[in-house]
Amino acid sequence: MRVLIIGGSAAGAKAASKVRRLDEHAEITIIQKGRYLSMASCGYPYYIGGVFDDRNMLISTPAGDQRDSSFFSNVKNIKALVGTEAVRIDRAEKTVTARHRESGRESILMYDKLVLATGADPIFPELPGKKLEGVATLQSMEDAEYLKKVVVERQADNAVIIGGGLIGIETCEALGLGGVKITIVEKEDQILPFLDWEMAKLAENHLAGKGVKILTNAAAAEIVGDGGKVAGVRTAAGETIPCELVVVSIGVRPNGRLAKEAGLRVGARGGILVNRFMQTEDSDIYAAGDCVEVTNLVTHARQPWPMGDAANLQGRVVAQNVVFGNIEEYEGFVGTGICKVFGCTVGGTGLSEKMARAEGYSNIITSTHAAPDKPGFMGAQPLVIKMIADRTTGRFLGMQAVGLGDVAKRLAMAAMALHGRLSIADMVNLDLPYAPPFSPAIDNFVQAVHVIENKWRGMMDGVSCVEVKQKLDDKADVFLLDVRGPEEYAKERLGAGEVLIPLGQLRSKTDLLPKDKAKEIIAFCKISLRGYEAACFLRSMGYTNVRVMEGGLMAWPYPRLK
Amino acid sequence: MRVLIIGGSAAGAKAASKVRRLDEHAEITIIQKGRYLSMASCGYPYYIGGVFDDRNMLISTPAGDQRDSSFFSNVKNIKALVGTEAVRIDRAEKTVTARHRESGRESILMYDKLVLATGADPIFPELPGKKLEGVATLQSMEDAEYLKKVVVERQADNAVIIGGGLIGIETCEALGLGGVKITIVEKEDQILPFLDWEMAKLAENHLAGKGVKILTNAAAAEIVGDGGKVAGVRTAAGETIPCELVVVSIGVRPNGRLAKEAGLRVGARGGILVNRFMQTEDSDIYAAGDCVEVTNLVTHARQPWPMGDAANLQGRVVAQNVVFGNIEEYEGFVGTGICKVFGCTVGGTGLSEKMARAEGYSNIITSTHAAPDKPGFMGAQPLVIKMIADRTTGRFLGMQAVGLGDVAKRLAMAAMALHGRLSIADMVNLDLPYAPPFSPAIDNFVQAVHVIENKWRGMMDGVSCVEVKQKLDDKADVFLLDVRGPEEYAKERLGAGEVLIPLGQLRSKTDLLPKDKAKEIIAFCKISLRGYEAACFLRSMGYTNVRVMEGGLMAWPYPRLK
Repeated sequence: MRVLIIGGSAAGAKAASKVRRLDEHAEITIIQKGRYLSMASCGYPYYIGGVFDDRNMLISTPAGDQRDSSFFSNVKNIKALVGTEAVRIDRAEKTVTARHRESGRESILMYDKLVLATGADPIFPELPGKKLEGVATLQSMEDAEYLKKVVVERQADNAVIIGGGLIGIETCEALGLGGVKITIVEKEDQILPFLDWEMAKLAENHLAGKGVKILTNAAAAEIVGDGGKVAGVRTAAGETIPCELVVVSIGVRPNGRLAKEAGLRVGARGGILVNRFMQTEDSDIYAAGDCVEVTNLVTHARQPWPMGDAANLQGRVVAQNVVFGNIEEYEGFVGTGICKVFGCTVGGTGLSEKMARAEGYSNIITSTHAAPDKPGFMGAQPLVIKMIADRTTGRFLGMQAVGLGDVAKRLAMAAMALHGRLSIADMVNLDLPYAPPFSPAIDNFVQAVHVIENKWRGMMDGVSCVEVKQKLDDKADVFLLDVRGPEEYAKERLGAGEVLIPLGQLRSKTDLLPKDKAKEIIAFCKISLRGYEAACFLRSMGYTNVRVMEGGLMAWPYPRLK
Repeated sequence: MRVLIIGGSAAGAKAASKVRRLDEHAEITIIQKGRYLSMASCGYPYYIGGVFDDRNMLISTPAGDQRDSSFFSNVKNIKALVGTEAVRIDRAEKTVTARHRESGRESILMYDKLVLATGADPIFPELPGKKLEGVATLQSMEDAEYLKKVVVERQADNAVIIGGGLIGIETCEALGLGGVKITIVEKEDQILPFLDWEMAKLAENHLAGKGVKILTNAAAAEIVGDGGKVAGVRTAAGETIPCELVVVSIGVRPNGRLAKEAGLRVGARGGILVNRFMQTEDSDIYAAGDCVEVTNLVTHARQPWPMGDAANLQGRVVAQNVVFGNIEEYEGFVGTGICKVFGCTVGGTGLSEKMARAEGYSNIITSTHAAPDKPGFMGAQPLVIKMIADRTTGRFLGMQAVGLGDVAKRLAMAAMALHGRLSIADMVNLDLPYAPPFSPAIDNFVQAVHVIENKWRGMMDGVSCVEVKQKLDDKADVFLLDVRGPEEYAKERLGAGEVLIPLGQLRSKTDLLPKDKAKEIIAFCKISLRGYEAACFLRSMGYTNVRVMEGGLMAWPYPRLK
């Protein structure tokens, strides 16, 4: 059996290796446009940032062998044609025409099964100045090498990153670790679009605290040059940001060209369409990785999901189906993303509130929860979690988390919950690995479940920081109640006209509360656990309009007085 | 409504606080035998070990307030009677007789709803010498203070810990961090009984590497004294281990005495029996925490589950049911435990192989998987995972993990899988939070799922290190094939007669392989990924009896030549 694989990065290399494990006698050939194979491309930012300096680590096995053509040949008996581009698929003849990029020589390769792993291309806007020296993307090994050189040789003191998505933020981490001053230009009103605005804002605040300048609602209009080199970025608003480096990271587009030219269907967003077995409508052609559209298991939409882990998993699925017929399904993804930036971890899975509303969920319930991620005596770090559930069924729909604490563990749990289609009720009493080095006695994830359950049952009426800020801006008639201690108040405070009554004094100082029992009261503390206790008390006093500002000061994304 | 709560540690204190949040007008009283309330008892080892020295951190809120009687009174309007013992429940009269321990004064407290949170007592064997000075347990705040003093004042250079369960190992961490030399005496053939033998052995090896002496299959026969103080422990085998401190940690027993005397049913293992609402057969009496028996969701057995997180969750459930009638269920636990000891994390959830067999599962499938927990360039740490599934249905039954890497995240995922009753097939393509700081592109958890899936489908025939060792001991006719590189081989090797053929040379060096195609071949490498590739190749060569030593050298629990 001849298995031909176009693309040798994540999905392609994985498919090739797995086919070999399943069929020693298959003739396996990879056609790879670039010079490298099986690159750990998610590691580029850490290479650029100097977490490590040996580029070969990006193409090494855990045992330290370099995954180059001779490795694939010797160890796996896989022929890898690097620097070679697939130019045409002939489905009737079952051949692919390949062109060696340097020599231009073409050859025709036959296949019994063809795997398309053609990846995605960075989207590059039609900006004046896009050809200037110093304009880059971060997609290929060559990009990584270029940016590494810029950082090491200190060719740029200032960089502008156009686009604040996952790759933009990882680029920010990379260049920032390398000592470059960064401005992010983002056309939306927030970075990290898979997060809700206020969660993204917490990440923005962290970045700003590390010296990164973030311009939201800002479009790049021109890359300004000087002597053929980048000198700055001019925004649509007319501001020019001086810089010597521009990295464009506004997203990627599935590379479905070959497939399309061969008459295979691609989806609305350009990705190759496949069934649950990652098979195209041509039963001898499979596709995997950034070039396909797959099912979002939460929304059931088919969309590109250009993630390294998904590409590897799909490659493994394809290999099994190529060898044995369609025995393995790739059901889809739940939409999990994470990144670490200057010590802060940010991630999400499933639907954000914004996405849920866009998907037509009109009866959702959310909770925002802030808390230390382990006991104080174990060196706790803060963690803010936002959860989304369907109010009717209680089905868990998604979670986002931001903080210096262990975000990855809680996101992994949330992803498991989505895969298992769990409801809030299923997660109220989770039996998790608890010991003080790892979590509070009730893990933050479960605490967040408890908050959403309390709200669901009407035991707590929550209000988001965003809504509170809106009320303040609208000069709404609301009594803001801070129930922390005076020492905490002296250190940091909202400064929005709130009244301080420490929780322990609340029962004895009811004279400080509004006379009007119908007056809207919003209680909070640092994380709003005490705020919640205060609200419970106030309700028992007959106040009919008491709410808790969810997540307290820790989740407040706006400037504070102190 | 009068709510009376007996016990003010985890479940009791949580129930009290939650009742207050739900009902401002309830009269809430806690009867607490000891002096302290709401202690973070899982933190004792870290206090003793000097991770922190301020004892008050164990009884402080995240905001730094001490949870003492006046805190409960002022902040929560809860009356907490400390140093007070409940001596009798009169169910007909709905009263509890309480005795102040110092004064001996008795009082009678009335209740509408009673919550039993009487905890568990350490089991103390009838050993000669048990009353000597220097014999301790680690259960109460007083115990923690005593051990802290011993460590700080260097009263003991050597300690013997009797019992190598979770608490024994945490005590080991505590005393070890404090500079005490430790011997663990364990009557079973392994420490940490919730793990399978070979996984526990990996933890034992780690402890031994840190200077801890572990005697398994060893019973303590006598605590030897000198002038009223501990001088050593004599084992049943006749060995005397000199020491100045003995900590007994052979387990705890639910404290169901009061309930039993009041005519309430207790289970076979001494825990109070409750329904899914944590309600005893007396509808006005609830129970929670270490004193109850609850449902193991995997085995459906009812058993004590004396864990701090479960106690807190149960306390929350009880409070809701006390206030609103039975609106919240505690369905049960899946059996998750974790501890950290000298940098190594060890844990399990669900069934071990041993437990599964004891439960009557005769058709299970296991996988042992070893791998770095993130890319090498991000500072990976090793992680060994063992998974158990039912072969017939594919249902996931449990997981254990040991290593310097992030065990907690993978265990949390496994616990979610058990709560969601997921099968192996459900977890082959999980969409997890992947970025290089957090995991390999395919997370170790999913890798382990892939191994078990490969075995399940007959694509891989695995053999455990234990089985391999047995074969070696039996001088079985087996060809052991190490497929690592020569440099790795020079550094560390099994030394059991294995033949080294690096994977990359295997296809060209088939002459080094056995002539007999039916000969049993066991392939391995460091983690047995290359071992698996070698096995695939050998099978394709017509060898009919090829197996992979699961987890490779990293999971090998026995001494090696090098």
